Amino acid sequence: MASEGFGSQLSHAIAATSPLCVGLDPSPALLNAWGLNDDAQALEAMGQTVIEAAQGVAAAIKPQVAYFERHGARGIAALESLLRLARSTGLLVIADAKRGDIDATMDAYGQAWIGDDAPLRADALTVMPYMGLGAMEAVFERAERHGAGIFCVVASSNREGRSIQTARGPHDSVEAMVLANLAQRNRDYCSRTGEMYGPFGAVVGATREAGDLDLGSLGGCFLVPGFGAQGASAEDVGVLFGSAPANSVLVNSSRAILSKGPDRGTIRAEISRQAELLNKALGG
Amino acid sequence: MASEGFGSQLSHAIAATSPLCVGLDPSPALLNAWGLNDDAQALEAMGQTVIEAAQGVAAAIKPQVAYFERHGARGIAALESLLRLARSTGLLVIADAKRGDIDATMDAYGQAWIGDDAPLRADALTVMPYMGLGAMEAVFERAERHGAGIFCVVASSNREGRSIQTARGPHDSVEAMVLANLAQRNRDYCSRTGEMYGPFGAVVGATREAGDLDLGSLGGCFLVPGFGAQGASAEDVGVLFGSAPANSVLVNSSRAILSKGPDRGTIRAEISRQAELLNKALGG
Repeated sequence: MASEGFGSQLSHAIAATSPLCVGLDPSPALLNAWGLNDDAQALEAMGQTVIEAAQGVAAAIKPQVAYFERHGARGIAALESLLRLARSTGLLVIADAKRGDIDATMDAYGQAWIGDDAPLRADALTVMPYMGLGAMEAVFERAERHGAGIFCVVASSNREGRSIQTARGPHDSVEAMVLANLAQRNRDYCSRTGEMYGPFGAVVGATREAGDLDLGSLGGCFLVPGFGAQGASAEDVGVLFGSAPANSVLVNSSRAILSKGPDRGTIRAEISRQAELLNKALGG
Repeated sequence: MASEGFGSQLSHAIAATSPLCVGLDPSPALLNAWGLNDDAQALEAMGQTVIEAAQGVAAAIKPQVAYFERHGARGIAALESLLRLARSTGLLVIADAKRGDIDATMDAYGQAWIGDDAPLRADALTVMPYMGLGAMEAVFERAERHGAGIFCVVASSNREGRSIQTARGPHDSVEAMVLANLAQRNRDYCSRTGEMYGPFGAVVGATREAGDLDLGSLGGCFLVPGFGAQGASAEDVGVLFGSAPANSVLVNSSRAILSKGPDRGTIRAEISRQAELLNKALGG
């Protein structure tokens, strides 16, 4: 079981805690609200507090890489140490970097974020499909080899992406094509390994309607933005993902949690409250 | 003229030197071929040599961020110092990061790469459109305000991206929608400023046919991968961009140049050779 894949790890973590993923988005506004300076040291301080508060209550933590990159090399160094800390507590860590490129270049991103030797080692990485999933084979293979996961953006929570994501290919919409590609990869993985969920997840916003997306077909986990501060309720999430199997839906919440800081106990209480709502709505 | 926009800066640089952009892709294979270790110090050494060799012959240099991120915070620190060095030589610097996200998160990427206070200050940044250009307003505005540019991936050079990029929206293909959005932004910019080219560029691969893309309509500059090692000749580029205005096409070349290293003189001779081919093919 040491070689269990990311889909299995995540579904076990959801079953053991909750479907909640705590988004670590150290924006200038939140740093200010916490009485912190806008520097790399503050990113680390905020991250430590959030990681301690989330431990045992949330299944995962999701640092938003943009807020670390904003501080250049120092911000990335802070992220390196937070990634190590979070993984040591047993939280699964999803690096929300939305990287996308092709071939050897995409593999270089994989080497940054995935595997034992990765300086920014995470349990999963978010990626962008615009240049084609077939151009990212190296990253899918690397993730599988290291028991890590990939979450590909399929249907984002904002409306500005709809015209691209719903455009029609020869057989299907763009988002349905991307979802079907991930589902095929998971089927191949599960038939080889006998696991129930594959390591290739889909980002699907809570604020949209499923439309022509067959969310029950993925065979992997969903990462769901758009809950809480962004507008969707726990019930909305429960309805949208009604066809998804048990413990395969991970719902991100960031601002509504982090805005309760800087007191760790208050943050933890809010995490518990949201975790309970989501456990109820998703039948956990 | 101090406040001249990026489109004008780049077209002047192309007119003064050549349509060549030198891609700085310090891959493990190239580091090894140069007799360098695979570490952050080597990234800096390779970058310095390439920057010195390109000065005055190429219009721009394009570091591929993935190869720096591969080395974590140390790699990003090396990139910070190379960005400063390149800009000090008068080369325009395009950070090939292909970042994509929405709203405040996308703005955080803008703060990382664009403007006087950006730790990773570049003259232009590449971005991904999958979540919609309307969700990246903050980055377009930031670029305009700081005389910087944005290159959005429109039609990539690899075939795996075609099914998404040619999918049909209500009126047009995805790639045509993205191109039209950029063109509208450039028209607005040019009508306000009276400049000839706007700061919003399009990434269009040299290896593809124009299809239904109206490349003459952009009103900004093109960044063109796929030349040289990736398969397209200078003549192919000349034919594909026949309708693009003078000095608006910037063609990237990386491996075919860097593989001549580590001798600076040999690299510079190859840069000059490719620059001349492109000047001839694009009528410079």
